[in-house]
Amino acid sequence: MADKRFFAVAGPFTTDEIARRTGATLVGSGNDKLVLRDVAPLDTAGAGQLSFLDNRKYIDLFRKTGAGACFVHPDLSREAPKGVVVLVTPEPYRAYALAAQAFYPDPPPVPGIAPSAVIDATVDLGEGCRIEANAVIGDHAKLGKRCLIGANAVIAAGVVLGDDVRVGANASVSHSLVGNRVRIYPGARLGQDGFGFAPDRKGFVKVPQLGRVVVGDDVEIGANSTIDRGAGPDTVIGPGTMIDNLVQIGHNVQIGRQCVLVSQTGISGSTKLGDFVMIGGQGGLIGHLDIGTGARIGAQAGVMRDVPAGTTVLGSPAFPVRDFHRMIAALRRLAKTRDD
Amino acid sequence: MADKRFFAVAGPFTTDEIARRTGATLVGSGNDKLVLRDVAPLDTAGAGQLSFLDNRKYIDLFRKTGAGACFVHPDLSREAPKGVVVLVTPEPYRAYALAAQAFYPDPPPVPGIAPSAVIDATVDLGEGCRIEANAVIGDHAKLGKRCLIGANAVIAAGVVLGDDVRVGANASVSHSLVGNRVRIYPGARLGQDGFGFAPDRKGFVKVPQLGRVVVGDDVEIGANSTIDRGAGPDTVIGPGTMIDNLVQIGHNVQIGRQCVLVSQTGISGSTKLGDFVMIGGQGGLIGHLDIGTGARIGAQAGVMRDVPAGTTVLGSPAFPVRDFHRMIAALRRLAKTRDD
Amino acid sequence: MADKRFFAVAGPFTTDEIARRTGATLVGSGNDKLVLRDVAPLDTAGAGQLSFLDNRKYIDLFRKTGAGACFVHPDLSREAPKGVVVLVTPEPYRAYALAAQAFYPDPPPVPGIAPSAVIDATVDLGEGCRIEANAVIGDHAKLGKRCLIGANAVIAAGVVLGDDVRVGANASVSHSLVGNRVRIYPGARLGQDGFGFAPDRKGFVKVPQLGRVVVGDDVEIGANSTIDRGAGPDTVIGPGTMIDNLVQIGHNVQIGRQCVLVSQTGISGSTKLGDFVMIGGQGGLIGHLDIGTGARIGAQAGVMRDVPAGTTVLGSPAFPVRDFHRMIAALRRLAKTRDD
Repeated sequence: MADKRFFAVAGPFTTDEIARRTGATLVGSGNDKLVLRDVAPLDTAGAGQLSFLDNRKYIDLFRKTGAGACFVHPDLSREAPKGVVVLVTPEPYRAYALAAQAFYPDPPPVPGIAPSAVIDATVDLGEGCRIEANAVIGDHAKLGKRCLIGANAVIAAGVVLGDDVRVGANASVSHSLVGNRVRIYPGARLGQDGFGFAPDRKGFVKVPQLGRVVVGDDVEIGANSTIDRGAGPDTVIGPGTMIDNLVQIGHNVQIGRQCVLVSQTGISGSTKLGDFVMIGGQGGLIGHLDIGTGARIGAQAGVMRDVPAGTTVLGSPAFPVRDFHRMIAALRRLAKTRDD
Repeated sequence: MADKRFFAVAGPFTTDEIARRTGATLVGSGNDKLVLRDVAPLDTAGAGQLSFLDNRKYIDLFRKTGAGACFVHPDLSREAPKGVVVLVTPEPYRAYALAAQAFYPDPPPVPGIAPSAVIDATVDLGEGCRIEANAVIGDHAKLGKRCLIGANAVIAAGVVLGDDVRVGANASVSHSLVGNRVRIYPGARLGQDGFGFAPDRKGFVKVPQLGRVVVGDDVEIGANSTIDRGAGPDTVIGPGTMIDNLVQIGHNVQIGRQCVLVSQTGISGSTKLGDFVMIGGQGGLIGHLDIGTGARIGAQAGVMRDVPAGTTVLGSPAFPVRDFHRMIAALRRLAKTRDD
Repeated sequence: MADKRFFAVAGPFTTDEIARRTGATLVGSGNDKLVLRDVAPLDTAGAGQLSFLDNRKYIDLFRKTGAGACFVHPDLSREAPKGVVVLVTPEPYRAYALAAQAFYPDPPPVPGIAPSAVIDATVDLGEGCRIEANAVIGDHAKLGKRCLIGANAVIAAGVVLGDDVRVGANASVSHSLVGNRVRIYPGARLGQDGFGFAPDRKGFVKVPQLGRVVVGDDVEIGANSTIDRGAGPDTVIGPGTMIDNLVQIGHNVQIGRQCVLVSQTGISGSTKLGDFVMIGGQGGLIGHLDIGTGARIGAQAGVMRDVPAGTTVLGSPAFPVRDFHRMIAALRRLAKTRDD
């Protein structure tokens, strides 16, 4: 299914092997040795291909899928068309993810240093690193094992990267300490100075930005996202946090573990997020806020106040979800009561 | 007019030649051989220069312009000051565009490969390509004729570009099939993996992103915009679609032909746009939506539901335009009825 | 305090020297020769370190700070803990900025041209420039004295940079005239053609973009921000204006002096800003507007109309601040009057 120019498929795997790897339960008997050669979306999957149903919106595609086997939630398994081997699991998307990882494993980079890469003599390069064409690594930078530095990326002086870090093409990293297994996507910017200046009669006085960006293990930082270094304290991204494309993170921001920041979100300086915080696309937070653990901030929300742990807020300015829905409902009724 | 350091002017052209090339009608007699040497804005245009009036907001500038000739809508042509040759057309901006193309033609790039470019031996390079300094092109990439790859841009392994494609400085393209005459502006990011992961007790399980970005003919992709490749299906940009700067397009998004996406728009994963859809600046769409052909989505709108063909929606959350205006009007009246 | 891998500290300075350099007043007697070796945030500062209190939110940290000395507003100086030398000033943040500049001066770049930089023979390079690895500078570009061009940055043909300009890693500049002491952060894009096309039966007719970007002295342009060149007129950024990350500025926009544009702001084509305009994060302005001197536009505001000088607007669509607050208050009351 996947374009051979870009992806190499592993396998095949039998259905029982897939069940074993993903924790799903094989429904029916005599299905355990069906050979699966690939994964595919519901609407294009054919015999020997494995698919999944995760969103009720696509149940019609599920009902007529030609897939050889399919992950599905127990509540929907009876909707499966005849001939499809059903793999039941409460988390079909997670099971699919694990199966797809089996078919398309992500091996460590092929070690090697492109002749055109410019690496300072003082750089400490771990075993098995791959440095692609025209990448630049500044003095006293330190890279762990099996790092991949993409073409035309720039790792500035003194930066520390853990093991298995991948930096995409044309990304730049300065003034940063980065954990293990971190992925920095193409064009992301880490460590530049934050937006710090004091007004003055004659203009603005620049405030030296003396902190760093400290990135925990297993973090992803999306394409063209920007993370400014701290002004004095550090800017901190907790382990396992997922940051989408075009996200802005201001100086001194502290983000906990396993947060999710959808694309084009902006977090102003010195705001703190607990763990497991989710922010929808284009969400915005002013500076110096405390956002509690497990808080959920809606897409395009404009957060001007602290958000307690576990709370969901929506709207601009943001209100607790129930208040927001009441306000919108009240406004709709009000607009209807007037004849035009 | 245009700075000689950056632009070279062609011509001159006579007024009747310009009328012929643009479909405009020359008003009055004896004006057909006036020599025009350049285009210019209304307020700075002088003798021998060609301008246009397209927005009523600038009618005062039109009334006192010193331009030699001017494109104008028939309804406004009598507002022309004495001595200006009037070129009447129902589409003054389009006529100006064609005239400006005559004065400032965009020739194919001067062929050549910079010595510092890094091009894999397996790359298939069409005739007449120009590869600028420090550009990197990965193995088995295939470029059509007359492509221009800007300085420090990165074309990853296996990427296919059609004829006359231009890739700006520091842009990166991977996992993509790109049509003819496509322009990818500086810093744009195509083909990185989308924001796909499944929650797990211990964090997130990454979902391999196995699709591509497929870009139709005549598409423009603005500076620092990001287009993620599909997760299984492809991310598809239809022919003639214009994408402004800093736009985010998530995995599996399908966009029809001749859509217009103004800057900082964000489209979440798996949403589908028909043809001729327009989205204003900073518009946001959640995932898995269907947006019908000819729909218009206002600036900063937050679209949470499908939008039928031909409908205009505004606001966050977005409502049909009439409902939105009623809601705002009702709210303004309500706020005024209370004495403060 | 600051990480030695990234920052080198100057000094030490005595308290009276710091008072002299910043205009602050030393409170108490016998404190004038205390030796300060560094700056630090309130919560981590220790003996011999200088801190500041600028935001009442952090007064508890001030009350228990271990700093050797601290800038503080006269109204709050009595809250200082025992043993802290108090430096009183009406502008503590500005005083801190000046002190931090003393401890962490920003020297001109070490001159030199990386062997891998690609600089056309016709480039006019001022004295003391530093051109880092793999940077590319096109023909007839002209750089002032002591410019720093970061690794993998691209300065296109004909561009003019003043003295002491710094261009970050992977940034690109074309069709631009840039003043003195301008800082262009990593990944910023200046001078690409704007979003200009006229609709046509068969698609869109591209309008040649014949203007430039003209940047005044002392401007900052944040990481991954995009500034399109003018269509005919220039795009102009006035002196001292501060532009944060991921900001979009369309063609023909004119911005006055000392404006502040917080991150992810978008300004559509041909809009004009006076001097001292402030725009909060994710603010959006449609095209062809006039924004008066000293106007303040709130975060996420959607500005559809001209804004008079000195006015504050909030909301999307934006209203004068008083109207906006009344509307929100009225809506909250309305939502509460209904039992659910």
